[in-house]
Amino acid sequence: MSAQTLTPPEIAADLIDQASFRDGMARLAGAVNIVTTDGPGGRAGLTASAVCSVTDTPPTLLVCVNRGSSAAPAFLANDAICINTVGPAHQDLAMLFGGKTPMDDRFAQAAWTRGASGAPVLDGAVVSFDCRVSLRQVVGTHEVIFAEVLGVQTAEDSPASAYWGRKFHELRV
Amino acid sequence: MSAQTLTPPEIAADLIDQASFRDGMARLAGAVNIVTTDGPGGRAGLTASAVCSVTDTPPTLLVCVNRGSSAAPAFLANDAICINTVGPAHQDLAMLFGGKTPMDDRFAQAAWTRGASGAPVLDGAVVSFDCRVSLRQVVGTHEVIFAEVLGVQTAEDSPASAYWGRKFHELRV
Repeated sequence: MSAQTLTPPEIAADLIDQASFRDGMARLAGAVNIVTTDGPGGRAGLTASAVCSVTDTPPTLLVCVNRGSSAAPAFLANDAICINTVGPAHQDLAMLFGGKTPMDDRFAQAAWTRGASGAPVLDGAVVSFDCRVSLRQVVGTHEVIFAEVLGVQTAEDSPASAYWGRKFHELRV
Repeated sequence: MSAQTLTPPEIAADLIDQASFRDGMARLAGAVNIVTTDGPGGRAGLTASAVCSVTDTPPTLLVCVNRGSSAAPAFLANDAICINTVGPAHQDLAMLFGGKTPMDDRFAQAAWTRGASGAPVLDGAVVSFDCRVSLRQVVGTHEVIFAEVLGVQTAEDSPASAYWGRKFHELRV
């Protein structure tokens, strides 16, 4: 399976350029998440900071997936996803899932269980949200995947990480 | 103008409850943002952590707005929004914009300029994204507002804040 071929979106002339956008986004602190999926499209995972809460009625998150990424075909085909938030113990794993390592080699570097959805749940994640996709919306190069939460699992008392200024910062209780 | 009356969404029986969702989300670190708007629907602002990057092609963010909030009518009517990320200097202001204070009293507590969109830009924000709404999507109680970025402004060298475990944590360069 290859990543989808994309038609470049039309871009209005009064928008900022990509570099300015990226520099600005580097100043917006956020969690880093290893997002996994499994199902008819196969097992896959990627690292994403573009995750956020949508509503608690029904409990829903979203994640934005680059349609050109190697993991995209699986995320576009499957309905099971798990959002695993990275703490200090999993920063190297997040780099691995954000790179070009083959899928099976990524998963071999950590311990996983399986959520009710069927997606891989990372052992010891700061928090894991096991989800079923409820809605999809294409925006430019990305697909915004909305997902309802079937299960949540937390590693209580573990520190967390925030990514800001292009590096990790440790957060303690 | 009153907030929209909402029909309760249908919720599948196998989803987690709201309290579990909120407890889980409290473990997902994120920036806190004062999101402002102005236009035909009037000037308004609210505090939101549900902001994330969507794509840099075209440069797009999203913010999730509760359709029942006092600021919602303005956000649903206007196309100009600005996402102002809060650092230590603006934590109290974020609490104010997250509460029940009348709109004019909220804005009176800080200094603002006006972006190309027409939305208020917070002086000294860690980063401000001045935006034009490009797409809207209702999900449960919330409206997901996608917005393309017309301008970005940063307060270089200022510390930032991450919200995690229901409190602010300072992030330094």
